[in-house]
Amino acid sequence: MRELFELRGADPQLLFSPYCWRVRLALLHKGLDFQSRPLCFTDKEPLACSGQQQVPVLRDGETVVHDSVAIFQYLDRVYPERPLLGEGVAASRARLLERMISQALRPPLLKLLVTRVHAVITPDDQAYFRSTREKALGSSLEAFADPEAGAVQLKQALAPLDVWLAEQPYLDGDSAGGTDYLVGSLFFWAWCLGIQPWASDSSVGVWFQRLLEHYQAHCGPVKRAALN
Amino acid sequence: MRELFELRGADPQLLFSPYCWRVRLALLHKGLDFQSRPLCFTDKEPLACSGQQQVPVLRDGETVVHDSVAIFQYLDRVYPERPLLGEGVAASRARLLERMISQALRPPLLKLLVTRVHAVITPDDQAYFRSTREKALGSSLEAFADPEAGAVQLKQALAPLDVWLAEQPYLDGDSAGGTDYLVGSLFFWAWCLGIQPWASDSSVGVWFQRLLEHYQAHCGPVKRAALN
Repeated sequence: MRELFELRGADPQLLFSPYCWRVRLALLHKGLDFQSRPLCFTDKEPLACSGQQQVPVLRDGETVVHDSVAIFQYLDRVYPERPLLGEGVAASRARLLERMISQALRPPLLKLLVTRVHAVITPDDQAYFRSTREKALGSSLEAFADPEAGAVQLKQALAPLDVWLAEQPYLDGDSAGGTDYLVGSLFFWAWCLGIQPWASDSSVGVWFQRLLEHYQAHCGPVKRAALN
Repeated sequence: MRELFELRGADPQLLFSPYCWRVRLALLHKGLDFQSRPLCFTDKEPLACSGQQQVPVLRDGETVVHDSVAIFQYLDRVYPERPLLGEGVAASRARLLERMISQALRPPLLKLLVTRVHAVITPDDQAYFRSTREKALGSSLEAFADPEAGAVQLKQALAPLDVWLAEQPYLDGDSAGGTDYLVGSLFFWAWCLGIQPWASDSSVGVWFQRLLEHYQAHCGPVKRAALN
């Protein structure tokens, strides 16, 4: 029995957390079935088995693993076919890419998405999200949100990925690998929250569409928030 | 006979180009001797054998290779011991890291360094550098230079590398690899031009010092520009 504890919106079918998307994409890559356990931000009790309070958490038989990168490492160790991160320096470089690319893309995406996250979650989660994020950001969600600036900064941050993806179909080369899922999850985050702040016909846009269609072909349609 | 055509300042011993530093560090990693052929920006004629006009150019017996990343690939192919980029997805990820990290670090470093480059080159090179760079930047060198803003932006860009290097001694893990040289070369650029816009006791600072001392232990002292 394999279970993925993952974040949901007020609609239990609306999944948007980029860290949880990573694990869904990784499990599909490995060809591993799982039961989804969608949780609200404030549903902390089912996560107690992991010794911490953040999704994603994967329970695989007797083993419980948290943290998306640790889950990738676990999957590669236990299911070595079709490596995600791979071994040695390949794995190290994927993990460093994850940090560098997240550092470049997350801040502009957050400016675009923070009020959208707030809009799609339950009232209890809204109170939790507002209080924890406003403390971390040092400002109100509304003051932090800045879709125009976020879109401009995102475009700049995507430029090297766009050049790269004009040269090969996936970040990891000829076929999708761990780097594609670690980075692509940020695009699922935006897409599921109802926006697509990149051009459909850009190399990055074509690459995301390829990841999305591959996922939907195997797992069915992805729920998208209906927000203006 | 192995020759490296590389950029020099007015002082022929002052080497500062980050792209050339990459190749010096890579040749040391492979344990390969070479003759240095230091060239001014405007010495294009010795590069004709490469079919283009940019340093670094490596001539290795009958083979001539230009472009620092292509030189890394060549060295790994012909001298496979102690891989720089490695193979398959490991090599692909190193090349993507090079793009992402250069995109993050080069713009702030350029604000810190552009007038320093101009100050250390020959009068002919100064005219060439000013005209080509001002056209590319769309402003005068002096208007583009902004050491204060560059230092602030660099600090922010270095943050994820600093966290990473607090966890392992090198970007590529337990020992220095291609990623360390591709990125470290940007630090040699600043250091050779007389500044060190990072804290000596930061993880990034300790890592650079390790690369520098390793280089100096094998190749002798590195010439530094005496600028205010």
